[in-house]
Amino acid sequence: MKPITKLSELVQFVKKTGKIKKIVVACGEDPNTIDALHKAASEGIVKTILIGNAENILKVIEKENVPNHLFEIINIYDEKQAVDKAVKMVRCGEADILMKGLINTDKFLKSVLDKDKGLLIPKAVMSYVCAIELPEYHKLLFISDTAVIPFPNIEQKKAMINYAVNMAKRFGINRPKVALISASEKVSSDVPNTVDYAILCKMVDRGQITDCIIDGPLDVFLACDPKSLEIKGVDTPVKGDADVLIFPTLEACNAFYKGLMLFAKGELAGLIQGTIKPVVVMSRSESALSKYYCIALSCLMAD
Amino acid sequence: MKPITKLSELVQFVKKTGKIKKIVVACGEDPNTIDALHKAASEGIVKTILIGNAENILKVIEKENVPNHLFEIINIYDEKQAVDKAVKMVRCGEADILMKGLINTDKFLKSVLDKDKGLLIPKAVMSYVCAIELPEYHKLLFISDTAVIPFPNIEQKKAMINYAVNMAKRFGINRPKVALISASEKVSSDVPNTVDYAILCKMVDRGQITDCIIDGPLDVFLACDPKSLEIKGVDTPVKGDADVLIFPTLEACNAFYKGLMLFAKGELAGLIQGTIKPVVVMSRSESALSKYYCIALSCLMAD
Repeated sequence: MKPITKLSELVQFVKKTGKIKKIVVACGEDPNTIDALHKAASEGIVKTILIGNAENILKVIEKENVPNHLFEIINIYDEKQAVDKAVKMVRCGEADILMKGLINTDKFLKSVLDKDKGLLIPKAVMSYVCAIELPEYHKLLFISDTAVIPFPNIEQKKAMINYAVNMAKRFGINRPKVALISASEKVSSDVPNTVDYAILCKMVDRGQITDCIIDGPLDVFLACDPKSLEIKGVDTPVKGDADVLIFPTLEACNAFYKGLMLFAKGELAGLIQGTIKPVVVMSRSESALSKYYCIALSCLMAD
Repeated sequence: MKPITKLSELVQFVKKTGKIKKIVVACGEDPNTIDALHKAASEGIVKTILIGNAENILKVIEKENVPNHLFEIINIYDEKQAVDKAVKMVRCGEADILMKGLINTDKFLKSVLDKDKGLLIPKAVMSYVCAIELPEYHKLLFISDTAVIPFPNIEQKKAMINYAVNMAKRFGINRPKVALISASEKVSSDVPNTVDYAILCKMVDRGQITDCIIDGPLDVFLACDPKSLEIKGVDTPVKGDADVLIFPTLEACNAFYKGLMLFAKGELAGLIQGTIKPVVVMSRSESALSKYYCIALSCLMAD
């Protein structure tokens, strides 16, 4: 498989597999969600079940001028019952992908995270990986954690690496280059994340983390700019050609990607990790295009 | 004064003041430094004294094809003595600005930070502020701390705010809008920096921090994108129009600015804060243009 280097190529790739995924939306009366799903359905990559207040759902469908034969509708008024039903359908294999509609994220995740009836893989770390497309970079960048773990410890960082590497491999990147991001390439006991990074690199040496080329601490220049290696005289197997950037904290990763979305014409597709099936939770501030790419990503990861 | 919104305007503004600043370079045998100073001298904003191995300095000047009448040269072979002499000249008022040449940063800073003979303001917090220019933002962004304080406490954050506000005012921005950056706008005891931010905002209410409009925690979208306020339904006096971004950690600020330099065509000018006179320390990986802007910034701040 030729690596996917753009999010638009991702949609085409999913389309070519010919597999149509079933998405179930909890509380489907949301115009943005319906628009994004309409676009995905038009490309022939998804079939959609909307759970929620059927009357309101139909009103939104009409208002958005979307053909309503594209959607199966299950009429459940109560929010909690609607989410529980959607989660159950994914658990039972009646749907491939769960998606959040017009409902508070905390309420939605409560059902998803339910130990007995939810979708979390037992004992798995929950995290978030984004594939970000930047006109000024020659391929996609997979970054973590943009949204879930505030201050990852070593085990959580290890899980973040594995999730990001696994996602990159689905994009056709055989041995992704992983950069563990810090402010410089120096290990210092004053900066605990750099010590974690040294430990993680040794885990790679010992085969405790596999399928990737990894190095850190590295700054963003050494991770993504080959010229910086020469200027700084640093030798690293990542070679300024990173596929994956692992960040020390959510604060750092979140500011990084939001800066690039605003000022570097970035687009992204992101997904919660650690669930038995893909769970799509999109932020209201994401662009319509990013929402559409999120759906395509969930189709890729559902296989 | 009309606010300076671009780094090229900064050079023109400094030029118009008609004041020529005297820069002394410790270990001046550095081609990049000499090139940047040549450009600044051509604009008529600086006069330069190069301290170091005179023979090597003259060789570099010849090789770079720079007219050597632009530079006064003081011949001192020993690195430490060269830096000490440069620091002393600034302390005594024989020069306005100190600049690092071809010498290890730690060695250079050791002389600068010397309690008795150095350039640090007694008891001052040392920090670093950058003015960053982005084609996709309508004005300059002042960010801190990109380089010095790994994990600022409240007092250090307060100093960072004061330094950045002071610099922004020199650029003609009367009441800079300061955003205290986090991953979201929510205060949470699980994220200590957001608690610091709440305390800092109350300090502003009580007049303990002045001359700025300030709010936080805010994410980068709420800080710099007015549309996000509507989408998220958040009301903040920063109004998506921030002049200053204060970051929770060096890790976060460093990755943010390096991402924008690489992928958003950013240019910057930065300066150490907390010294009695400007001290220019430039990274080897900064562009020639950024180095030139750093010199112009030091001229502005030397007044």
